[in-house]
Amino acid sequence: MESIQVIKIGGVIINDHQALEATLSDIAYLSGPKILVHGGGKVADQWLSRLGIQPRMVAGRRITDDETIEVVAMTYAGLLNKRIVSQLHKLGCPAVGLSGADGNVIQAVKRIHPTIDFGWVGDIVSINATFLHALIEKGLMPVLCPITHDDDGHLLNTNADTIATRVSIALSDDYEVNLWLCLDLPGVLSDVSDKSTVVKTLDTASYQSMAAAGSISKGMIPKIDNALDALKEGVQKVYITHADSLKNLKEPTGTRICL
Amino acid sequence: MESIQVIKIGGVIINDHQALEATLSDIAYLSGPKILVHGGGKVADQWLSRLGIQPRMVAGRRITDDETIEVVAMTYAGLLNKRIVSQLHKLGCPAVGLSGADGNVIQAVKRIHPTIDFGWVGDIVSINATFLHALIEKGLMPVLCPITHDDDGHLLNTNADTIATRVSIALSDDYEVNLWLCLDLPGVLSDVSDKSTVVKTLDTASYQSMAAAGSISKGMIPKIDNALDALKEGVQKVYITHADSLKNLKEPTGTRICL
Repeated sequence: MESIQVIKIGGVIINDHQALEATLSDIAYLSGPKILVHGGGKVADQWLSRLGIQPRMVAGRRITDDETIEVVAMTYAGLLNKRIVSQLHKLGCPAVGLSGADGNVIQAVKRIHPTIDFGWVGDIVSINATFLHALIEKGLMPVLCPITHDDDGHLLNTNADTIATRVSIALSDDYEVNLWLCLDLPGVLSDVSDKSTVVKTLDTASYQSMAAAGSISKGMIPKIDNALDALKEGVQKVYITHADSLKNLKEPTGTRICL
Repeated sequence: MESIQVIKIGGVIINDHQALEATLSDIAYLSGPKILVHGGGKVADQWLSRLGIQPRMVAGRRITDDETIEVVAMTYAGLLNKRIVSQLHKLGCPAVGLSGADGNVIQAVKRIHPTIDFGWVGDIVSINATFLHALIEKGLMPVLCPITHDDDGHLLNTNADTIATRVSIALSDDYEVNLWLCLDLPGVLSDVSDKSTVVKTLDTASYQSMAAAGSISKGMIPKIDNALDALKEGVQKVYITHADSLKNLKEPTGTRICL
């Protein structure tokens, strides 16, 4: 099977024009099929703030009320997605930007929680791998933003790591999938205060003992859970790493996740 | 040749949830290949105003400075385009929303004017009809927003009527194209103050005499010029009409433009 790189970027990179351009340049240079998934929460927060809307987070997830879904759809699907796609074309990498609504690429369902009203937050129901495959066969890199839809006329805010994971799983019937969950750290750290303590390989057993010992930070837990889900569902390799790792995929830095 | 409907909507419809849903319902119901092009200037003005940015128009065109291109990209490519696409899916019409950057569908060049600095305004260089054709063959309706790119990393603001016209011309090698330029009036009026004075058919000669007599309003002139360009370049039929006309394409209301 042909291999494909599924890359998720977010955080500081998205918010820093120069860092973003450098990362997109590395991505453009990668040969073979590839998909980019981006976040952009920090940029959305800036626009919400300019509009006088207070961002609200509960359990690491954004509470997405009627006003907030408009602003995050604008930021993710409009400004960031199109800026990234236009940059990629400049770098010689033909791309097509998509929300989950486009071609029904990511259908989701509004999250129902017994105690928290998350608002317009969506949990993924299905991925249209056929459409992604068709775009890739035309030489285009799909660029997915973290906006999905419910097929009933509503846009939903969906975690970008989860999108990258579910897309990777959906493509694993057709491709040998390598998933790169990029972050602002060099990888999973055994001591969160020391960037030199990157864990080279993290398997389920070592993850569980590190989590029990409290040496894995809260934000990292859903990321590692996504990575393990991907591996269980047929994804070939998963790395949690800094975007700098994309410069040389043959000798990746960061943390390789294993079952 | 198979026929295709290229429909442009804008103005009041885009800004009115109920009117938009009714129009999208009519569009979803149309059989055969179709493309939707939308504007959204009034909605962009509202967001610009909320952000304390004063909209600036010269000669009917928006002056698009650094801040304004961000807000119009957010509004057109993010909020409106994705809202329309998600509504179309709800209505059983599979669609894919695109800016000009996506799949390099519309490449443009920044407008250079001897006396006016229009900012990030783009004039169309090329249409990727092959990509549009491929999407249509997959049963998807392309939904184009008025954001293009220069293939050098910049997003550009481009008139939606002109996009609809140029897309129609580009598709006229493959399809018998019917172009519907919808507006908030029932058609071209011989007396702009009287909605009952719709001109059923407007050809170049009658257009020139009406324009000379001052009975065609300024905003209508570029629209009719676009319509005539389309006909000269191989488009089969062009109507300037109210979106209500989409309810029954076999007996269209409004103004048919002829050479």
